[in-house]
Amino acid sequence: MLKFSCDYMEGAHPAILKRLGEINLDKNDGYGYDPYTQMAREKIRKACGLPDAEVHLLVGGTQTNTIVLDALLRHNEGVMAAQTGHINVHEAGAIEACGHKVMPVATSNGKILIPELAHHLAELKAEYDVIGWEHYVVPRVLYISFPTELGSLYTLDELLQLRALCDQYHLYLFLDGARLGYGLMSPTCDITLHDIARLCDVFYIGGTKVGALFGEAVVVTNPSVTIPRALIKQRGAMLAKGWLLGVQFDTLFTDNTYFDIARNAVSQALRLRDALVRKGYRMYLDSPTNQQFVVVPNAQLPQLAQEVGFDTISAYDDQHTVIRFCTSWATTTAQVDQLMALL
Amino acid sequence: MLKFSCDYMEGAHPAILKRLGEINLDKNDGYGYDPYTQMAREKIRKACGLPDAEVHLLVGGTQTNTIVLDALLRHNEGVMAAQTGHINVHEAGAIEACGHKVMPVATSNGKILIPELAHHLAELKAEYDVIGWEHYVVPRVLYISFPTELGSLYTLDELLQLRALCDQYHLYLFLDGARLGYGLMSPTCDITLHDIARLCDVFYIGGTKVGALFGEAVVVTNPSVTIPRALIKQRGAMLAKGWLLGVQFDTLFTDNTYFDIARNAVSQALRLRDALVRKGYRMYLDSPTNQQFVVVPNAQLPQLAQEVGFDTISAYDDQHTVIRFCTSWATTTAQVDQLMALL
Amino acid sequence: MLKFSCDYMEGAHPAILKRLGEINLDKNDGYGYDPYTQMAREKIRKACGLPDAEVHLLVGGTQTNTIVLDALLRHNEGVMAAQTGHINVHEAGAIEACGHKVMPVATSNGKILIPELAHHLAELKAEYDVIGWEHYVVPRVLYISFPTELGSLYTLDELLQLRALCDQYHLYLFLDGARLGYGLMSPTCDITLHDIARLCDVFYIGGTKVGALFGEAVVVTNPSVTIPRALIKQRGAMLAKGWLLGVQFDTLFTDNTYFDIARNAVSQALRLRDALVRKGYRMYLDSPTNQQFVVVPNAQLPQLAQEVGFDTISAYDDQHTVIRFCTSWATTTAQVDQLMALL
Amino acid sequence: MLKFSCDYMEGAHPAILKRLGEINLDKNDGYGYDPYTQMAREKIRKACGLPDAEVHLLVGGTQTNTIVLDALLRHNEGVMAAQTGHINVHEAGAIEACGHKVMPVATSNGKILIPELAHHLAELKAEYDVIGWEHYVVPRVLYISFPTELGSLYTLDELLQLRALCDQYHLYLFLDGARLGYGLMSPTCDITLHDIARLCDVFYIGGTKVGALFGEAVVVTNPSVTIPRALIKQRGAMLAKGWLLGVQFDTLFTDNTYFDIARNAVSQALRLRDALVRKGYRMYLDSPTNQQFVVVPNAQLPQLAQEVGFDTISAYDDQHTVIRFCTSWATTTAQVDQLMALL
Repeated sequence: MLKFSCDYMEGAHPAILKRLGEINLDKNDGYGYDPYTQMAREKIRKACGLPDAEVHLLVGGTQTNTIVLDALLRHNEGVMAAQTGHINVHEAGAIEACGHKVMPVATSNGKILIPELAHHLAELKAEYDVIGWEHYVVPRVLYISFPTELGSLYTLDELLQLRALCDQYHLYLFLDGARLGYGLMSPTCDITLHDIARLCDVFYIGGTKVGALFGEAVVVTNPSVTIPRALIKQRGAMLAKGWLLGVQFDTLFTDNTYFDIARNAVSQALRLRDALVRKGYRMYLDSPTNQQFVVVPNAQLPQLAQEVGFDTISAYDDQHTVIRFCTSWATTTAQVDQLMALL
Repeated sequence: MLKFSCDYMEGAHPAILKRLGEINLDKNDGYGYDPYTQMAREKIRKACGLPDAEVHLLVGGTQTNTIVLDALLRHNEGVMAAQTGHINVHEAGAIEACGHKVMPVATSNGKILIPELAHHLAELKAEYDVIGWEHYVVPRVLYISFPTELGSLYTLDELLQLRALCDQYHLYLFLDGARLGYGLMSPTCDITLHDIARLCDVFYIGGTKVGALFGEAVVVTNPSVTIPRALIKQRGAMLAKGWLLGVQFDTLFTDNTYFDIARNAVSQALRLRDALVRKGYRMYLDSPTNQQFVVVPNAQLPQLAQEVGFDTISAYDDQHTVIRFCTSWATTTAQVDQLMALL
Repeated sequence: MLKFSCDYMEGAHPAILKRLGEINLDKNDGYGYDPYTQMAREKIRKACGLPDAEVHLLVGGTQTNTIVLDALLRHNEGVMAAQTGHINVHEAGAIEACGHKVMPVATSNGKILIPELAHHLAELKAEYDVIGWEHYVVPRVLYISFPTELGSLYTLDELLQLRALCDQYHLYLFLDGARLGYGLMSPTCDITLHDIARLCDVFYIGGTKVGALFGEAVVVTNPSVTIPRALIKQRGAMLAKGWLLGVQFDTLFTDNTYFDIARNAVSQALRLRDALVRKGYRMYLDSPTNQQFVVVPNAQLPQLAQEVGFDTISAYDDQHTVIRFCTSWATTTAQVDQLMALL
Repeated sequence: MLKFSCDYMEGAHPAILKRLGEINLDKNDGYGYDPYTQMAREKIRKACGLPDAEVHLLVGGTQTNTIVLDALLRHNEGVMAAQTGHINVHEAGAIEACGHKVMPVATSNGKILIPELAHHLAELKAEYDVIGWEHYVVPRVLYISFPTELGSLYTLDELLQLRALCDQYHLYLFLDGARLGYGLMSPTCDITLHDIARLCDVFYIGGTKVGALFGEAVVVTNPSVTIPRALIKQRGAMLAKGWLLGVQFDTLFTDNTYFDIARNAVSQALRLRDALVRKGYRMYLDSPTNQQFVVVPNAQLPQLAQEVGFDTISAYDDQHTVIRFCTSWATTTAQVDQLMALL
């Protein structure tokens, strides 16, 4: 059956499996003290234009969000996030479980509404300055995802505005790049990896959804911030065979692989989007990345569900439902053609 | 100077101080194993019509909210609360610090909007049932305050509706009664202590704001719920000289004292409200309890602030501010008269 | 019945109750923003010889230990404490519940064995330096109690040695002074309050057991350390009517009251000890403070228990039990005489 | 260079890599809802003789210990473990970081001393029953590792004794089997997988050290216990591409692979041990499994360290050091021969 339910249904780019096979019986030091991890770190630093950045290779997204935020926040500090942000809705309360409040911010199409955020921060400051901050959760991090949960992208101008708000209110800017490649490779994207490295305090480059078996590369760009390795260990996130992460990111950041394979997912998704629009479907929002949200008549759903896997998002109205199709680095032209033929 | 800033500016009802003086050099067992605590528990059980209820005497409100919620919630469970609820905004993230998400609900005048809550719960259930609850914070407690932070009161009909929603969605109903007396003694209140005892799973009777030096009496009405004393100890909330709490609640629940003194605060507040309305002030909301929120021209504020203590809530418009006057069990007619003369 | 079970069975020094009565209906600002708290802080700073020290007035001991340690420790750091230390055995796991390991150290008579501690620290350093600290809990605080749980006292020379170890291994020295007065007023004590203020990074002056209804005054002597008030709020330890703490410590630190009343407890205890020794009882350890541990034949216990309250500590041998008698600031000569007559 | 430093230096059994390659571009459902995970669970249940056991496939050991213990323990409960147990010393305080005390127990050769444990439990019960459990951490889990950190093994008789103590004191028995294969395949082992499944409440089968790239299979044998998947998600341990774990354990539990490859590690280790003994080396302890601890003259170490990787454990005396050699499922006869030639 065709499957477009999500972007983590395949294994890894074949070059990764090949290299893992080649070194399988070599003996490597554990916990990231292997040469592949060092090489991966170097290549990531170079790609970011940050020769001294601290880079950590972790296993998964929820784990990464938890550890980064736990490192950035003190006990009475919280993280502002889109109401629809992954940490606010899809991580079973992981951030709160390590003691920190997620402070939701109004969104549109998955993106934080910047004027609302500015207003909210101004209001908090006005109130806390009077009554005393000691009664309140102090916002200390702004968490954004790029692309967002709904596939949308901030523009460079928006990212600059968010950075300015962070500077004004002493927030760290933390970017969840679980799908970073699918954002940067979008034809509408006017942000570069260098921009992200320059404007965020911490961000991560998602491997799980973009070519790796698993793995998220955290880049700490702010030299006054560190993520203690003891914290990584303690949270069960220090992979014993750390070179598995090293080899994967070293491969992805060799010869531009990460970006090249990410581009395929976006191209296939936009091809699908154009076909859907041509066929008269209403797109739920205008996503320029690998997730496409489309409004489908309910009557059509049962048949469709027998032929293709997709993700049901929400009711659109009494007679329509919003569903999501995801492509990945591994999606083929043939698969998208088959899907288009069904719709 | 006149002071109407809050309702915890005075000490205790004189009868309490008198009794504390009388037994001051007696030797009592610690940690609540004294006769006064037993007597207080019995009187509270009787007042609630619950002869077998578990009753704990704790020191303060944030402490009580934290301990009760920590006892009710498992790791992946959260508490729904009014957006303006004390646990969501005024406790420096205490609930999240013990690992639980506060899930805000839309409000009007400090009260949870019941249709919105119903809709929200239905939506969560619809979504989680499809995707699997394992990715989400499961709402397990509904927290309400009575009176609310804005002095408003749920009606009996509303409380019944909230209870029904809790039953439908398997939530505990937890009522924060930091100002319980000031709610129950309001002339518009159609709810009794027995109703609360019957409809909530856990609630507490606030002493700090209603006649005691400090102290909140937690009543666990649901026999399948318990608040482990070890948890109280661990959170630093098991007062060594527990009889200090016992004597206070025993006094307050003797001869209807708690309710009689609470009534005074409400009468004085309503007298103030009526005077304000007569003088043409706009009330920010219609509070039937001891907190009165009034819209005051900004031009009037500096002078007023020199003559009386009040709480500044928020800007009303460019030229007006919402301020709060609070009365307490100890507020005198003369004090209110003086205040009225200033306005 | 006579009661010598513990030192927190009476209320407060009468001067405290008197002052609480005098200001009972005054209106004071909450949360410690009252004049009494400011006065108490000043007097405590002066008594410590530290004009700029940060002083916090908290309610109880477990609460205080938790908040201080939570402020001092990062996630992967732990606190070293006597195996018999209060935080290791009597607080229901409060320190671990806020995420920090208590690392037990061997003791004798309740006191940390300094050579063992030195050896232990050297060993940890040797091991961690090789394998990498990231796998280990890093000791960051040394917690001692003065007097210890068994009534014993460190000498000035020992305190200097502990300070030197703390300097060598980058530990904060935190002194639990729940019974501080009973230590400083012991005739064998060669340590002054100034010494403690000079040698510890944080310590507290116990009020609950020494003349107050409740209250522990935390003194932060290390200017690079702070205990955030938001943390105090969040842990439910910011008393709404903070002036209750202010008045108590202001009274205790006026006219040397704290020390004068503490001296009585020690004198009575030593009088009891001398009588017990004269009568041929074996003392379990040589305590120079208000707790006396004595070995009693099991056959004598049932009768004794009918006439006086005491604390049973442990079996001494098949035929003897160790029991504890505690005096307090309020213990009278007559009460001790009565007790001596029973033994 | 030869490397015997630890048992997680190689990748996975070649059959695992082969299968991962075969299905690499298939589309699988995430989070463990793939057919391989189901097959792996079935085979593990069958191998354990527990057709209904709950089985979870997690990524690493510290993660697994944390999640299992967090699921088993309530806030005031702790876990008893060998003083030398992994959770007590090598996990950077992971258990405390989720709020639970590790209660160390005296050991010999890495094994809990059963009489000491029995005595300790009896003492705690005697004390708590008198003073009240509310002041104490209640032991609720007994954690053992098999083999232990020092390579030693409990006998069946000892395991039965531990089970009996657990029954007597209402403890769960949780067995850390990070090296389970290397224990069960030891010629001196008189315990079977069925015994472990029958006698423990929860245990896990280590894959990371025994043939997998990563992965620990948790088996919940006590039907009244469950490990909520939300907790796994929240702790960042629900691998998105869960089939990576499924394929690995399915392969290892096909055709007895797990046990066959584990046997090789033990055989090579015992061959090494015999050779060392023949050459006159003193073994630090008599380990029947894949870890061998040997006493080496300090003078010999620098040269040895240039030729082979090993783990330095501790000083033995002024002139000798204890070092560890580890074999793994992948260790070859030639490698051990080379090592023996160096010694």
